[in-house]
Amino acid sequence: MQFAIEHRDAGSQARAGVLHLAHGDVRTPAFVPLATKGTVKTLLPAEVAALGYDIVLGNTFHLMLEPGPEVVAAHGGLHGFMGWPGPIVTDSGGFQVFSMGHGTVADEIKGRASQGAEREGAILAIEEEGVRFRSYTDGGERFLSPEGSMEVQAALGSDIALAFDECTPFNVSRDYTATSTERTHRWLRRCLDWHAEHGPPGQAVYGIVQGGVHEDLRRASAQAVAASGCEGIAIGGSLGENKAQMHEVVGWATEELPEDRPRHLLGIGEIDDLIRGVELGIDTFDCAMPTRIARHGMALVPEPDARWRVNLLNGRFRDDLEPILAGCSCPACAGGMSRAYLRHLVRQRELTGLRLLTLHNLTFVAGVMERLRAAIAAGTLEESAAALRA
Amino acid sequence: MQFAIEHRDAGSQARAGVLHLAHGDVRTPAFVPLATKGTVKTLLPAEVAALGYDIVLGNTFHLMLEPGPEVVAAHGGLHGFMGWPGPIVTDSGGFQVFSMGHGTVADEIKGRASQGAEREGAILAIEEEGVRFRSYTDGGERFLSPEGSMEVQAALGSDIALAFDECTPFNVSRDYTATSTERTHRWLRRCLDWHAEHGPPGQAVYGIVQGGVHEDLRRASAQAVAASGCEGIAIGGSLGENKAQMHEVVGWATEELPEDRPRHLLGIGEIDDLIRGVELGIDTFDCAMPTRIARHGMALVPEPDARWRVNLLNGRFRDDLEPILAGCSCPACAGGMSRAYLRHLVRQRELTGLRLLTLHNLTFVAGVMERLRAAIAAGTLEESAAALRA
Repeated sequence: MQFAIEHRDAGSQARAGVLHLAHGDVRTPAFVPLATKGTVKTLLPAEVAALGYDIVLGNTFHLMLEPGPEVVAAHGGLHGFMGWPGPIVTDSGGFQVFSMGHGTVADEIKGRASQGAEREGAILAIEEEGVRFRSYTDGGERFLSPEGSMEVQAALGSDIALAFDECTPFNVSRDYTATSTERTHRWLRRCLDWHAEHGPPGQAVYGIVQGGVHEDLRRASAQAVAASGCEGIAIGGSLGENKAQMHEVVGWATEELPEDRPRHLLGIGEIDDLIRGVELGIDTFDCAMPTRIARHGMALVPEPDARWRVNLLNGRFRDDLEPILAGCSCPACAGGMSRAYLRHLVRQRELTGLRLLTLHNLTFVAGVMERLRAAIAAGTLEESAAALRA
Repeated sequence: MQFAIEHRDAGSQARAGVLHLAHGDVRTPAFVPLATKGTVKTLLPAEVAALGYDIVLGNTFHLMLEPGPEVVAAHGGLHGFMGWPGPIVTDSGGFQVFSMGHGTVADEIKGRASQGAEREGAILAIEEEGVRFRSYTDGGERFLSPEGSMEVQAALGSDIALAFDECTPFNVSRDYTATSTERTHRWLRRCLDWHAEHGPPGQAVYGIVQGGVHEDLRRASAQAVAASGCEGIAIGGSLGENKAQMHEVVGWATEELPEDRPRHLLGIGEIDDLIRGVELGIDTFDCAMPTRIARHGMALVPEPDARWRVNLLNGRFRDDLEPILAGCSCPACAGGMSRAYLRHLVRQRELTGLRLLTLHNLTFVAGVMERLRAAIAAGTLEESAAALRA
């Protein structure tokens, strides 16, 4: 992996460049659509590329359980399996494993522990060696360790593998966060050691900064991860209870990170967070938001006061003949499809409707990222960011 | 509407030609994919056209309830609403209304009448004037008459409207079928009278042959419908309890029909039925099968002994690296997607998988129809039909 920063913004930490990966180049800053289970939901690979995306994210946890790494490996890896020839990043599975744990905690509080455990799986034990959990697919006990995660990601053959970390939730103590973050650093070391010996050629490894919302822990974690020698750095875990705190926490991390290595912000992708993240020096983002809200009938629009979205299920669109967004190049808007038609499709749970909104939302996000990249190159990020936020 | 028969098969009643409709030409014999609620499920209009389909079928009953004919009419009709510029046929709504009735009968037998009525709607009364039923969308009482059906189809602006008929089920008496069929003929007269005065220019009306599995009733119905002067003729209702009987019943009808008018076979589309239907002189077919079984993980393949289908959820495909069908031009097969990958997508209920199988199945059916049309033109239908059946 090589990361070439081509432009730096004078008024912020933003930078624009190209991430050269084993399966191609990624223009940064970039949004990474989710291909959780081996497909960007509702779309074909060529469509995702045509929208202007250079890289997608596959999910180690889900693909490990179904269809299993050996099936993916038999296809020559995730690229062959899903027919996406370009760059792929895989997460470590840590987030999903630990989300199950948090789900279980929530279930216990609400007195439905066993049901939750059956339905969603559950963490059985977090040990130095790794995490023992119950699979949601067959109820069987599974174990995931740093080495195990790297082994699965090696089988998936992604361009970027993420180190296995504990994703600490918001409502844990500072002591727990500190202890967990230290263990995440030891797990990173083990990931890098395993990868040095067994990792596929050309696969880069990103370490993950944890530390919760505690400034000293975040800064220390950023320094520790940078010192590990990993090729890129992701920022994960709890980023706070509101956007102001999230932006502050991300800023603490990026201030400590080396300039020359790429930075990924995990699971963040609301439009205002993309803009602020770019200003804070983030190079890549992944998030379920654009594709997930599409399947709930919500379309992205340039209306910051409305969280950049409009709910097409709203009755006022029943006979609205206008497209979602005039001038948008997506098949729904450019194809002259009305809000009334799209509302009808979503109300009827027609897959075509979910697909059209997915295409619209990913077109919108691609446009925002393209505009941010161009603004950094042109030295006009401040004006462009202000225009996007207005 | 004009129907030009260009080729006749010497060894059967098959014919090939072109149906000239208000929004374009339909090469016959043709399969008509369902766009029940205003979309061919999972697909965009341009994709349906690219597969080689000239015409789709919209559903009067469903579109009448949601979004309502006035919403569709505000888009300039169904063509504008769904963005399909080519020919459209709309059914009359009769089949859906009477299916609800039969559903209710089944529910009563199984002791779940009220639940069924709430969930799926119910027929409240069949009268000379029309049918009173309970809507499945809001539980409200609705009324559909021959004139009402034509009025909705006028608002939808389809190229072909089907007359409102009672679709008699298999398990009714000969007396009931005779009485119902007579009423269907009176309803056809009313449809034609309404249409002559109020129908949109360029919209053709097809009458529907009923008569159940009784040879005299079927032949008499075919004669009565032909005598009504309708521009095309559809064959509906119960066609029997097995394929041999279905083919016999269809044959009785087509023997009585005038040569020069197009014939549509309602709701039939299994591959062997398409082949036999063409031999019996059917020009167009509609059926949910190719698109519906796709959403259940089944792919069409040239294996008559396996009902022309393979269930990709079968465990033997877990690590099968082959495409569904070598040489197939669909995005899944031509794109090198393996049976293992498609199985994974379908198991995970990924919409991309349902879409890929929909594309495959419609590609397969389009290929069969193209082959039958070419064989009729070349005078080789007997050999082609035999090869398809082998």
